[in-house]
Parts: sequence; structure tokens; C-alpha cells
Amino acid sequence: MTQTFTTDALAAITREIFMRAGLTAQQADPVAEVIVAGERDNCKSHGVYRIEGCLRTLAAGKVSPDAQPKLIDDGSGVVRVDADAGFSPAAFALGAPVLAERAEKLGVAALVINNCTHFSALWPEIETLTGMGLAAMAMCPSYSSVAPAGGTAPLLGTNPFAFGWPRPGAAPYVFDFATSVVARGEIELHRQAGKPLPEGWAVDRDGKPTTDPQAALDGAMLPFGGHKGSAISTMIELLAGAMIGDLTSDEALEYLGSTAILPHHGELILAFSPRRFAAGRPGDPFARAEALLDAIAGQGARLPSQRRFAAREKTARDGITLTTEEVAMLERLRQGASKG
Amino acid sequence: MTQTFTTDALAAITREIFMRAGLTAQQADPVAEVIVAGERDNCKSHGVYRIEGCLRTLAAGKVSPDAQPKLIDDGSGVVRVDADAGFSPAAFALGAPVLAERAEKLGVAALVINNCTHFSALWPEIETLTGMGLAAMAMCPSYSSVAPAGGTAPLLGTNPFAFGWPRPGAAPYVFDFATSVVARGEIELHRQAGKPLPEGWAVDRDGKPTTDPQAALDGAMLPFGGHKGSAISTMIELLAGAMIGDLTSDEALEYLGSTAILPHHGELILAFSPRRFAAGRPGDPFARAEALLDAIAGQGARLPSQRRFAAREKTARDGITLTTEEVAMLERLRQGASKG
Repeated sequence: MTQTFTTDALAAITREIFMRAGLTAQQADPVAEVIVAGERDNCKSHGVYRIEGCLRTLAAGKVSPDAQPKLIDDGSGVVRVDADAGFSPAAFALGAPVLAERAEKLGVAALVINNCTHFSALWPEIETLTGMGLAAMAMCPSYSSVAPAGGTAPLLGTNPFAFGWPRPGAAPYVFDFATSVVARGEIELHRQAGKPLPEGWAVDRDGKPTTDPQAALDGAMLPFGGHKGSAISTMIELLAGAMIGDLTSDEALEYLGSTAILPHHGELILAFSPRRFAAGRPGDPFARAEALLDAIAGQGARLPSQRRFAAREKTARDGITLTTEEVAMLERLRQGASKG
Repeated sequence: MTQTFTTDALAAITREIFMRAGLTAQQADPVAEVIVAGERDNCKSHGVYRIEGCLRTLAAGKVSPDAQPKLIDDGSGVVRVDADAGFSPAAFALGAPVLAERAEKLGVAALVINNCTHFSALWPEIETLTGMGLAAMAMCPSYSSVAPAGGTAPLLGTNPFAFGWPRPGAAPYVFDFATSVVARGEIELHRQAGKPLPEGWAVDRDGKPTTDPQAALDGAMLPFGGHKGSAISTMIELLAGAMIGDLTSDEALEYLGSTAILPHHGELILAFSPRRFAAGRPGDPFARAEALLDAIAGQGARLPSQRRFAAREKTARDGITLTTEEVAMLERLRQGASKG
């Protein structure tokens, strides 16, 4: 039977599952928060579905349940949090207020998260920062599953790239997308449905273009937008892998030995103070941004994340309804039995 | 008759043309430098072909020949240069050393260029910064010629996005591309050749998809990579337009009233010190980046800008050979006659 939850109730259950699995409150709370945010926004790929992946990674000994993230701050524009091999949301929660303070002080600042297990979408982090009046950009590697444009084998990750701009009195302008043509899950869905892939999504294990989902899963996905998307994905490996002294997607896969558990690597988040960047210049940056965004929407072009924001409004009215299977999974995990 | 020049000789001629047209040495020198860099790298779309566009913009009174760029530096992470309505290269030349110093000091810093006429590719700026051991990202609006994904009319610019990473002992990793599917010149070439456009490049003036080059020129180009490229282009309008207190592509077109002269707007350049970002972390960021870049090239995938770097090597051996028409144009402009 389906069941409807308030966000608080679902957060409490999720937290309970993680605490029972051995996570400290410092780790469990922010993890539960981003999972419930996924359900709240009907972003199911980052909702309760993720709980078992987190528990599998824990069972594999690849994430520390009682990690104590450590802030490393020399007062410069680079604020660092060593996640202590814990989950990224706890590290972000520690670093975000310092990042925001530093961006207001210096105009631009970076938050580096090192040594974390990553499973969250980037938009919850972006929205935390836009909620403080900052523009923000975030990126991270994942594990090798994408061939560079013109290449033949998995090397790059699906490497998400996200950006946000605060809109006073409204939901922010936010995008958060994989730099692969599609998420790996889309290919899996085609396989299950026995449907061929559109051209340009993937190559087979010989590096030849393929529309066969299984051949694609055995081969490599392709970046979005041809060589341009491939270049952006490479930039993400360089900035949010090599530069911050953390694993690239290739190194992350080697470290884990499997794509069945969550990737371990770092993350780079940049925050910009529009107030500082616009200082001394004519016009209000927020009002001018509104004119642009209104002109986009006025053409009938959809702004990114609108579907999420609509789902969020619906959730505020109606709560979060989970399927019979999802409710059964939560119940099973509360009893302490993990499927994996 | 074709003629072959050393880079120094071509720079001297280009400089002479601009000085004759009234530019001060402070304006003429960096403009000549980026134009010659375009020819040196066989990047013809940013070579001597650009001289007449610069002179047309000057004749239209839309760029100041004796502008004195002004550095505005409060010691924070945002270094600003007001270009004083001159050309962007003079402003960048003034700001770049301060940006580099600030990035080394703070780890990350931004250079804002305001109030400039922009005609240069972004890669010369990126390569100036990679030459100082910094990673760098640059972006700017242009003027409205691109419809947002799902939209029907020109609103966004071709908004270039560029990135560079220093490679010790080798040419840097550099990309610099328009966020439209192609540059406007590509559509013009199809029109001249009477060839239909590939699908997905453009819409006509009713917002309908078109493969007719003239209908595309009368309508709007489309962003690369569908809604993802459109989102990145929008990010560029927000960060390098609204946030820095300078014109968006829509405002730039309104200000100029024409796409026949060069766009007037601002630019945002971010610089990162890999040394600072990697501090305290295991491994050398440059060596780890080399492993990634070698793995990309090892798959037969071409790294961006390789064609330019090969042309640069050839130029170092053979000089720059211009066509009969190009030589005649330079001669005509040296005499002080502008076609426009």
C-alpha cells in the first residue's frame, strides 16, 4: 500500500535507518536531508532509492560511518573540508557557512571537499548557497563510464556540473546536469524495455558507435554536446580531481573496483557575491537578471529545475507519497536487514 | 601575390594601421598582438580579418581610440579593470598581472573587465594565465543571435566559454568555444555555398527549425548540446553580464543597434592556483593531470587546440603567409583607406 509522509517524518525514518547502520548523527542527519530533498522534489533518482547504495558502500567498508569532517581554513579564498572518508553532505554542512562568509569578504571563494563518498545531487548544495544570496558553481568527478569525444573506452565520469543564481522572492535559477549525454540509469531503462538507444549516446567495448543498450553498458557512454561537452568533462577532472588533490574518475574506479558502490573522490564549489562583483557599477544585478530570465521564459523556453520546484510546491500541500515497494524497503531497512 | 611575414613584422604593420586610425600605443599594441596570435595559430577567424571590424567599430564611434583602462583593486579576490570604452586586450594587459598575483595569494581570484569592446578570442588570455602556472576559466556575452533551447528568437549571444590548464614543458590544455552549435560564420559559409544546414543548428524567424541558411540568419542560432548548452550560455549572461554590472547580449545588441560592429560588454576571468588548491594533499597535481591527458590522447581522442599548436610550430619555422587579398587589404589600410 502506498503511504504518504511529511518531509519531517520521512527524514526521521531515513535518519533512523542510517543510525541503526552505525552512522553518527553528524553523518546521518545531512545524508537524510538530501535524500528527503530528492523525494520532496520528485527527483526519484536521488531519493530513498539511494539508501541501499549508501548501506552497500558502508558494508563494503568504503565509507566511514563515524567520520569527523575537519575544516582546514587559512583565511584565504580556498576553504577546505577533509571529509575523513565520510559522506559528502556532512562535509558540505561544515564548510558551507565558512564558504559563504569568505565569498562575501573576498567576492569569490572556493570550497574544496576532499576524501568523501559522494552520492548526492549537486543542486541541494547550490540551493543552500543561493539561499544565502550567492551565485554558485559546483562540479565533481564520478567514476569512469564515459569515453572522451573521439575516444573508445570509459575514462571520464558522468561528471555533474551545476550552477545557481539567487532570485529574490522566488525559487533560484538552478541547473545540475551530467556531462554525459544521459545518466547511466537511462541506458539501463532502455535495456529493461528492450528499446534501442538513440544514436550518439554510447560506444560498444570496441569503441564503435552502438544503439544496443547492453553493448553500451559493456562499452562507454558519450559526453553531451560532442567535443565541447567532452572538454567540460575534462575540465571537471582537472579542477575537481587533479587540482584539489583528489581522485579523478579513473582513479576512483580503480580505488573502488566496482560501480555498484558509491564513488569516493572530492568536489569543488565556487561561490560568488553578486553584491561585490556589481559594486560601483550601474544597475541592480538581481533586477537585470530577472529581465533576462523573464525574457527566456517569455519565449516559452523552460528554465531548468522548474519541474522540481513544481513538485516541491505539491509536496508542501500533499506530502510525499511512496510506492508499496518503497514503503516495504524502508520497513525492511528499519528492521536492520539490508538486501545487498 | 602571397607574402610571408615574421610575427614581429606582421605585428608592426597591424600596429601601424591602428595607430594611423587614431589608437594610442596602449590600445594598439595588445590589439595587434592578439590579431597576430590568431594568424600565427592559423585561427583565421580571429586574424587580420578582424582589423576592418575594429576600424568599422571605431568609425561608428562605439570604441574609444585613446581609452585609458583603469585598475580598481581593493585587495580582495575581485580585481576590476574599467576599459574606459576601449578594446578588451588593453584592459586585460593591465589586469592580468594583478589577477595572477591575487590568485597566488588567495588561491582563487577573478578579473572583471567592464566597459570594453570585445573582439578577441578568449584563448590568448587563457594562455597568458596558464603561462604563469595558473588554471583559468573565461567567459563573456556577445550580442543576441541565439535562441534559448525551447525558445524561438535571438536572446543569448554565442557566449564563448574557455578554460586552460598549465602543462609544464608543453603547450597547455586549452579549450575556447562558442556555446552556440556553431559560429555565425559557419552559417554564412553554408549560405554562400548554397548548402543546407544540418538539423538542430537554427530556427527561422517564426521560431521553427530550419535548414535554410538565409532563414537561419534571419532567425536564430541554437545552443550546443540542447538544454545543457543553453543553461551554460544563460550562466554566462548572468555571471559575465548581470553580476559584473555589464551588458547582457540582449542589452549589447540594443546598445549597438547592429551586429556589423564589435560587441560592447564585459568579461569575467577566473584564475586558480593549483599549488594552493593541492596544498597538503598527496600527489603532484600537474603530474596527475598529465596521466589523465595522456590517457585521453592514448585513446585517439584529440585534445582541444592541438591544431592551433601545430600551426604555431609551423609558423615558428615558416612564418605567416597571407593571401594576395589579405596583403592588398593590409596595404590599403596602411594607406589609411577603410573599406567600410
